[in-house]
Amino acid sequence: MTTYVDNWAEQVRAGDVRAISRAVSAIENREREAEEILRQLFPYTGHAYRVGITGAPGTGKSTLVDRLASHYRADQKTVGIIAVDPSSPFTGGAILGDRVRMQGHATDSGIFIRSMATRGFLGGLAQATRDTALLMDAAGKQMILIETVGVGQGEIEIVRLADCTIVVLMPGMGDDVQSLKAGLMEIGDIFVLNKSDREGADRYDQQLRAILQLVPEREGWKPPVVRTVATENKGVDELARQIELFRAHFDQAHDRKAREVSHWKEWILQLLEARLLERVVGEQLGERELDRIALQVAERKMDPYGAVNQILARAGLGDKP
Amino acid sequence: MTTYVDNWAEQVRAGDVRAISRAVSAIENREREAEEILRQLFPYTGHAYRVGITGAPGTGKSTLVDRLASHYRADQKTVGIIAVDPSSPFTGGAILGDRVRMQGHATDSGIFIRSMATRGFLGGLAQATRDTALLMDAAGKQMILIETVGVGQGEIEIVRLADCTIVVLMPGMGDDVQSLKAGLMEIGDIFVLNKSDREGADRYDQQLRAILQLVPEREGWKPPVVRTVATENKGVDELARQIELFRAHFDQAHDRKAREVSHWKEWILQLLEARLLERVVGEQLGERELDRIALQVAERKMDPYGAVNQILARAGLGDKP
Repeated sequence: MTTYVDNWAEQVRAGDVRAISRAVSAIENREREAEEILRQLFPYTGHAYRVGITGAPGTGKSTLVDRLASHYRADQKTVGIIAVDPSSPFTGGAILGDRVRMQGHATDSGIFIRSMATRGFLGGLAQATRDTALLMDAAGKQMILIETVGVGQGEIEIVRLADCTIVVLMPGMGDDVQSLKAGLMEIGDIFVLNKSDREGADRYDQQLRAILQLVPEREGWKPPVVRTVATENKGVDELARQIELFRAHFDQAHDRKAREVSHWKEWILQLLEARLLERVVGEQLGERELDRIALQVAERKMDPYGAVNQILARAGLGDKP
Repeated sequence: MTTYVDNWAEQVRAGDVRAISRAVSAIENREREAEEILRQLFPYTGHAYRVGITGAPGTGKSTLVDRLASHYRADQKTVGIIAVDPSSPFTGGAILGDRVRMQGHATDSGIFIRSMATRGFLGGLAQATRDTALLMDAAGKQMILIETVGVGQGEIEIVRLADCTIVVLMPGMGDDVQSLKAGLMEIGDIFVLNKSDREGADRYDQQLRAILQLVPEREGWKPPVVRTVATENKGVDELARQIELFRAHFDQAHDRKAREVSHWKEWILQLLEARLLERVVGEQLGERELDRIALQVAERKMDPYGAVNQILARAGLGDKP
């Protein structure tokens, strides 16, 4: 018997834009059907290449993603874009205003664009992003571009499950080597120096390359620096070429399987974490009881560690005596 | 009977630097004693004021924190500094090189400085930071300055449990309003425009104030913009004054109790999340079995949602039939 969800999943696989949109909404709203659809679609995934693009606000990431998407479309590749804003947990709505720029693609059925922002429990955004990437993969999108604002742990959580991570920088972001330190060097597979027609670009470029010398190679890959002026479409072809080189490099690597297992291990851990909280707090304990406990802690009648031990014990996960 | 931990906790309360240091290390290394000490110390907490300081790399946060600490010390207030680097999950060690600048305080027993970086499960850093802040509180530090790099979700998780959050900006960080959007507006109680002697500062200041007009007031508080040149100690007194104004404003607010309960609610949820993973994966399932499951998912023999459902069922937390 063919169910409603079977049909829906079939439409997603066929690339039906409305079916995909509804499925992303179901993912975002944590509807039960989202998991059913994703489970049905999972066997058909594993073909897309996911590119994570991160960098500080104002570096021109959105424009770069837009140009990269156009490049792939000209190359007859289908594209999915997920624009994530993890730095805005309090608004509940995507505030990436410049999605307007993407309107040029609006009539192209080979490209699917979606903005996402945080809702619910912490970590929910990264999960929704991963689910959406899987969905686009099953829907036949060949290149999935995951754009995220900023360079903190939240962003790293989002891009670390991509196949290739691009860090976007620009001249004048703190004029010294300082600004290059914080975590960026470790996550970038490719570095883009955007707005590279600006003053100070050469100096910044040199400093960047000098620092990259110090980063240990990952299995023979030395992260390149690509200079772009996204607004003028300069350097975008070279960026696409470097992405292909990176892809080819790691597709041939001997530890490809090990990397895939470790990818799924982390994926499972993150989903498990979210589900555990749903079960133990959302279903078993309840918000009201949590409020009561929090009040006791605020009044110093209970300590928070003891409170958590109590909750664990109630869930049958207490310390062994 | 007085135990080893009782003595240790007593030494922490007395402000003994070595006892505090050892306790922070125990927190970082997730030693069992850390929780025992924190539980003993908890009733003596609740007196410190926690100031979170965040902003993009290169904005001069460390220097600002250094000057603010000196200001408080001149005022006879004891100070704790926690410098957190959440953007570096792959190094395992703090890379905030400029802690060297803090050496001026090295002989002052009224100030305690500690750098922290990510280890273990995601989210562990925010928890360790919160535990360390509690410890410093119990040790009698009156002002606790929590400095964190970047403006993403990881940083927000760290600073959102502070009493007052300062966002540090500087002229030239993306020269347009764009760079001010991403989440910063919602988390800042006070905005600092550092390096405000630079070109473009006036224009940036104006844009910042224009945008702040659009942010809804929180209980009658309008986030001020303080212009500083931290390297020359300019504007630091004014910043300290604004922090005091903010503190007074919310100490008198009618919903103080509600805010404290909500603070502890979130605290408990985050600790619970970490403990749940430790129990269900670390103790019950085991790394090896997790690897086996991840391999099956990588080979598309199992889907990740089904895998998580299985793990939940084994932990006695499965779906009701």
